[in-house]
Amino acid sequence: MGGDFAPASEVAGAVDALRQRRNEFEVILVGREREIHAQLQRHDTEGLSYSVVNADEVITMDDPPTAALKQKKNSSLAVGMQLHKDGKAEAFASVGNTGAVLSASTLILGRVKGVSRPTIAAFFPSEEGVCLVVDAGTNVDCRARHLYEFAVMGSLYAKKIFKYENPKVGLLNVGEEKKKGTEVVQEAYGLLERSHLNFIGNVEGRDILKGKAQVVVCDGFVGNVVLKFGESVPSFLKSKLKQYASGSIIRKLLIGAARGSLRASLRGMDYEEFGGIPVLGVNGVSIIGHGSSSPKAIKNMIFKAAEVAQSHLNTYIEEEMAMELKPIAPATPAEEGSS
Amino acid sequence: MGGDFAPASEVAGAVDALRQRRNEFEVILVGREREIHAQLQRHDTEGLSYSVVNADEVITMDDPPTAALKQKKNSSLAVGMQLHKDGKAEAFASVGNTGAVLSASTLILGRVKGVSRPTIAAFFPSEEGVCLVVDAGTNVDCRARHLYEFAVMGSLYAKKIFKYENPKVGLLNVGEEKKKGTEVVQEAYGLLERSHLNFIGNVEGRDILKGKAQVVVCDGFVGNVVLKFGESVPSFLKSKLKQYASGSIIRKLLIGAARGSLRASLRGMDYEEFGGIPVLGVNGVSIIGHGSSSPKAIKNMIFKAAEVAQSHLNTYIEEEMAMELKPIAPATPAEEGSS
Repeated sequence: MGGDFAPASEVAGAVDALRQRRNEFEVILVGREREIHAQLQRHDTEGLSYSVVNADEVITMDDPPTAALKQKKNSSLAVGMQLHKDGKAEAFASVGNTGAVLSASTLILGRVKGVSRPTIAAFFPSEEGVCLVVDAGTNVDCRARHLYEFAVMGSLYAKKIFKYENPKVGLLNVGEEKKKGTEVVQEAYGLLERSHLNFIGNVEGRDILKGKAQVVVCDGFVGNVVLKFGESVPSFLKSKLKQYASGSIIRKLLIGAARGSLRASLRGMDYEEFGGIPVLGVNGVSIIGHGSSSPKAIKNMIFKAAEVAQSHLNTYIEEEMAMELKPIAPATPAEEGSS
Repeated sequence: MGGDFAPASEVAGAVDALRQRRNEFEVILVGREREIHAQLQRHDTEGLSYSVVNADEVITMDDPPTAALKQKKNSSLAVGMQLHKDGKAEAFASVGNTGAVLSASTLILGRVKGVSRPTIAAFFPSEEGVCLVVDAGTNVDCRARHLYEFAVMGSLYAKKIFKYENPKVGLLNVGEEKKKGTEVVQEAYGLLERSHLNFIGNVEGRDILKGKAQVVVCDGFVGNVVLKFGESVPSFLKSKLKQYASGSIIRKLLIGAARGSLRASLRGMDYEEFGGIPVLGVNGVSIIGHGSSSPKAIKNMIFKAAEVAQSHLNTYIEEEMAMELKPIAPATPAEEGSS
């Protein structure tokens, strides 16, 4: 109920999802019953497996996340997450208030054993496919251990959901050399080196779009800044092209003619294709979509939720978290010399 | 001598600069005399005011900055910076090893009174003109006071050199609310609020290209990541367009026809136009250019160095640093309530 077009977009997306993959899952629509039923009547729902669970309250986009969760015990978010916690649903998805979904995921579902900080990843397009940047804004202040955990979770998500065989994990830094960056990042480098991941060392800001790694690890401050910067690129280009085109009719025609191609080329930056982003490290499956999700985006989000639920991702995360790091490699003479 | 095309590009750029603004300044070319003279012979230097000072050693791009400075006392960098220090030159410019120029600027020139951390700014294009992001990679670990200093220096540079009347200063953060972000950033917010700058509050990653502020303040880790990310956007777009165009001949033609327009629209991202980036907060004028600078970029860098020298920027920085912050504003009831 917290999305920008709720519940119209949610209901339409759910109906589409069920129609497309009829026997694969069931959808429980949680929110104001009457509004949901009113929307359902606009669709042909014959033979689709869904149910409606009432929740009278709505956490809005402007509500302070944690406070809203406490005050609105009967929100669609709280009720839906509780259904998942109680095993009545195998996954939860929402396009409501991101902070509130995050809080509810952690508070209601709890954390996977061994994980100290649940996280969310952002998906960037790259020259080589999708690049997961993790953390994308959940944890602004991180210790090295947290970065290591993000790497484990991101890597397993890339492997199990994006089907990368042995995803390359890079540590976001200001240079390639091991001794670059803050103390925290240098310490994280040491942990990642000793991990069982396919750690390729430090990567830089330019390597995200280049696709040098499939998983790029950073704290949530940096991740959030680079995510929002990236999201602003298409509209910046549009504004610059428009400005340039206004200079002459020929330019206008040329740019107009190529506009479709440009748009198609930028499609990799399209949120709708990815079906929302997962909250990683919580005891369950929680997917967050964009507030202004279209029915198509909602449909893809439901597919994603079902897929993650079937992947047993959390079991793999728990296993990897329990693994011991490899012993510290003795420094080579070359390394000792260069400080 | 440390640039990628040294000294050919440097000499050509200097000659162009002198020819274009004959009476405004004199250029001292520092480096291997014979190589410089060989280059000078390829140009018409009749009536131009220049001199050559010999320096036999070269700090390369791969040299570790501080160590190289100690070992190569007779490098063009060390000799040139010392000329500036000794008052024989009023500004210094180089396209050599960035780290080494930074170190030399701080070690040889010293800091402006009141500045604890010299910094470099990056220039981003934006929908509203140029946006300075400061720090762009010099100081990866910062305290609140450092961020405040970056804001003062960036703001004065925007005012004196880019001629923004009352530049808007934003603090890069993960959200607009005052209580967002790390402790350091929250503390910096408090200092900036009490400063005499035109502080507009927190800005987000997306606000850089939007041009919401003319000066965006952050630590060097974030600044470096977002700078390098931004620099990689044009080649990412090129790769995506190429990939898309390969799908059909019509697409190829359309994209080919619009290519010039695209390139022109992205010109704001062009390093050459800005004439290098200044080291802010050192007792002198030190400008760093891109290693692969063309003669045109070198020429603009020389103009920039002259302009900064004439602007008395450091006097303004010293004055602003000596100013007391305004007293803490009493919290309004609304602010007290929302935590």
